[in-house]
Amino acid sequence: MDFPEQNQISSELRETGDIFAPKFDANGLVLAITTEAGSGQVLMVAYMNKEALSLTLSTGIVHYYSRSRQSLWKKGETSGEMQRLIDMRVDCDQDALLLSVEQTGRGAACHTGQKSCFYRKVRTKNGTFTLQKEDGGQIFDPKQVYSRD
Amino acid sequence: MDFPEQNQISSELRETGDIFAPKFDANGLVLAITTEAGSGQVLMVAYMNKEALSLTLSTGIVHYYSRSRQSLWKKGETSGEMQRLIDMRVDCDQDALLLSVEQTGRGAACHTGQKSCFYRKVRTKNGTFTLQKEDGGQIFDPKQVYSRD
Repeated sequence: MDFPEQNQISSELRETGDIFAPKFDANGLVLAITTEAGSGQVLMVAYMNKEALSLTLSTGIVHYYSRSRQSLWKKGETSGEMQRLIDMRVDCDQDALLLSVEQTGRGAACHTGQKSCFYRKVRTKNGTFTLQKEDGGQIFDPKQVYSRD
Repeated sequence: MDFPEQNQISSELRETGDIFAPKFDANGLVLAITTEAGSGQVLMVAYMNKEALSLTLSTGIVHYYSRSRQSLWKKGETSGEMQRLIDMRVDCDQDALLLSVEQTGRGAACHTGQKSCFYRKVRTKNGTFTLQKEDGGQIFDPKQVYSRD
């Protein structure tokens, strides 16, 4: 699967036209914000390279590119928490994708075992900032799921 | 306003603790995903440097850092489409923020005049991908709002 090169289309066409021309950055990556189908809750944010995007679109199963491991990342391959693609959108300048997915497995997108990676709120307390966890967000124990035994 | 340096806290504490220690990248930026308060709809994605984050938290008005202009960006200063911060969350590794905002002005977060920057869906058509705009998403005419006369 191939996509038009950035220099093949004008910035106006990219921002308002109907050509899908994702803008991969200097590292060949495009941002992917992933939301839960139905609720629209933001679950996580990650990156895709051309291969991950192509596989996501062709298989309907979300693939990312792991910057820390520097490799293709089929989400949920270890944990079982895979994501079924329902819908994909792109932003005005086409350097970010917005995915709507069905989270499979236990329903936790985050490797900490939480449903969403964004499970802590920033709170002001005595003039400093602290993070407050939401109650009941813990779906699995990462020590058990990612055990290396 | 200052935040703990990344090397001051362990990765476990960063991912599951209550210390707000945003992880600025090599360019001093952290990702900010902005959603509409109430609906949770994703409006846009941008970056913040330390100054933008501090100003956002201290004033309650969302500031970003514009990578293209390489300067602080008080969202809506030109267009009037400012964002009032309702809530802020941070993800597991603290390199991304999730903002909940009230969009002021006409209600368009995108410089194209659309409510959300993610106003086009990726569609398969005759084996290729095209973008389909949502009906009724155009809130203002950017040529009028950003006129340089």
